[in-house]
Amino acid sequence: MAARSGVTLAEIAAEAGVSLSTMSKVLNGHADVAASTRARLEEHLTRHGYQRRGAQRAETIELVFHELEPTWSMEVIEGVEDVAQQAGLSVVLTVSGDRHSPAPDWIDGVLRRRPLGVVLVFSDLATPHREKLRSRGVRFAIVDPAGDPAPDVPSVGSANWSGGLAATRHLIELGHRRIAAITGPEDMMCSLARVDGYRSAMNAANLPIDPDWIRFGDFHPTGGEAHASELLARADRPTAIFAGSDLQALGVISAAAAQGLNVPGDLSVVGYDDIALARWLSPQLTTVHQPLRRMGEEAARLVMRLAAGESVDTLRMDLATHLVVRGSTAPPAP
Amino acid sequence: MAARSGVTLAEIAAEAGVSLSTMSKVLNGHADVAASTRARLEEHLTRHGYQRRGAQRAETIELVFHELEPTWSMEVIEGVEDVAQQAGLSVVLTVSGDRHSPAPDWIDGVLRRRPLGVVLVFSDLATPHREKLRSRGVRFAIVDPAGDPAPDVPSVGSANWSGGLAATRHLIELGHRRIAAITGPEDMMCSLARVDGYRSAMNAANLPIDPDWIRFGDFHPTGGEAHASELLARADRPTAIFAGSDLQALGVISAAAAQGLNVPGDLSVVGYDDIALARWLSPQLTTVHQPLRRMGEEAARLVMRLAAGESVDTLRMDLATHLVVRGSTAPPAP
Repeated sequence: MAARSGVTLAEIAAEAGVSLSTMSKVLNGHADVAASTRARLEEHLTRHGYQRRGAQRAETIELVFHELEPTWSMEVIEGVEDVAQQAGLSVVLTVSGDRHSPAPDWIDGVLRRRPLGVVLVFSDLATPHREKLRSRGVRFAIVDPAGDPAPDVPSVGSANWSGGLAATRHLIELGHRRIAAITGPEDMMCSLARVDGYRSAMNAANLPIDPDWIRFGDFHPTGGEAHASELLARADRPTAIFAGSDLQALGVISAAAAQGLNVPGDLSVVGYDDIALARWLSPQLTTVHQPLRRMGEEAARLVMRLAAGESVDTLRMDLATHLVVRGSTAPPAP
Repeated sequence: MAARSGVTLAEIAAEAGVSLSTMSKVLNGHADVAASTRARLEEHLTRHGYQRRGAQRAETIELVFHELEPTWSMEVIEGVEDVAQQAGLSVVLTVSGDRHSPAPDWIDGVLRRRPLGVVLVFSDLATPHREKLRSRGVRFAIVDPAGDPAPDVPSVGSANWSGGLAATRHLIELGHRRIAAITGPEDMMCSLARVDGYRSAMNAANLPIDPDWIRFGDFHPTGGEAHASELLARADRPTAIFAGSDLQALGVISAAAAQGLNVPGDLSVVGYDDIALARWLSPQLTTVHQPLRRMGEEAARLVMRLAAGESVDTLRMDLATHLVVRGSTAPPAP
């Protein structure tokens, strides 16, 4: 361990007026150091450009999901794994916590494992966790942040609002008027942004929105199925549904089949994500392409650049989305 | 590092008549030690019950794929991750090599990373790699071995032959006579076993097999699509196809749709794997359930038991498969 300036840790500790043992605690992210002491020490460490180096070069990137979803997660994993491998790094895969934050014991594990950096998917990081990682020089980035992260939190998302807008516009251009939207959980930014894109497209076309047409749920097939069953049972059922994920879209198509409705003859369905299997479904799924693999790649690159001490202009990046029109959408039945 | 008997490594080295530097090379898996010296030293180490211990407890299980397939890989990952997490271990995910063996540089990385053990999916391990891992006490197990591993290679597979038999019997019982089989690559045990199960079911029912009906290919949708397109273009096209994976089955259904054939009205399709999405496809997929998640779990447990020095009765385990009948199979059109 050494500071960029050549000053030793012992010298920095002396300068900050703390013992080496206290410094070690701060570096190792232990909690039992007074906040003021920690802050003072951090200041000195920062001033001397302290960074870990030496024999035990960090060899891993830690990738954290709150759950592994089939297909969706895999594409992010592939992106991170690909970039890591090219850099000679291994990927440590962890499933922890909920969509708001990794579980508390996860942070201890990370400090022990000393990765080069951490890529969090969907989750956010509580402020004390962020500070612990920072004090140890473990860089992190968030893929598709669930909440609205602070501006100094590195993140890679995608253009959710534009995606919702494009999907809904496509349905309107086909002639649909009664269009419902099933999206993800109400406390996730991506769900809100997509449904706002839907609202804007409807408003721009002067189409009324029945409040019952907007549904929040989880991103799994069952979520799409349950909401679609209700929507399709209405006398004035929608002729098109914009689903918040391809998995939800599968649930919607399944609910339609259960009511004897043909997709796209009786109901048009647009998904979201463009998972690898989307073009292999029957009908092939019209969906908003979200560059999941590239989001993983960019997050891994961002973490590596930060860890290398490179200056990064923008900590927050939204990759473009675009609509892929396939077979699950058609003009409404006359 | 210490031997269970309390004897130090220096004493073991002296007893075996090798230098400490040579011993270090053997322990670290370096190649430049004469085989006879290595063998002699291994004997002494074994006799003293040598094992690594102390501060640097291995904290990871390394999971190696030759490729990440959507859905399929994810279920194995979930199984390994779940067992590892319960044991307080992290999973290092690596994509390396082809379906025969991880890439040569992978082994150096593993020796550096010092995992508790390695779970290899699909691949096999070349003998020198096996020896290197053994000499360093890194345990390993193979999930769904591609080749026919030696009896002393720990592995977790599934009942592929029975799966092929059950799938084909189901089609025969529905009344099908012209049944084709698309399976995986010809050099993989699982492909051969499944197609042999198909043959046995056909033979038992006294049904002839046109040699053109048996197709080998990769497990991706494109593989299923290409073979099915050819099979379905024949004047005496098969009325049912047994596909080697659910992804191939998607390709088969896509090829049928392209020729205006309805599944299951004009063509019955059985898949293999029972991926999480199988019940969400239209039609819902009849398929052979392969317990992918449990295979991952068992392999992780096997590695952990071996690493803990527990005696393991059977190093080779095949988990049961069973047919799940859903909507993609029906009696042939009259």
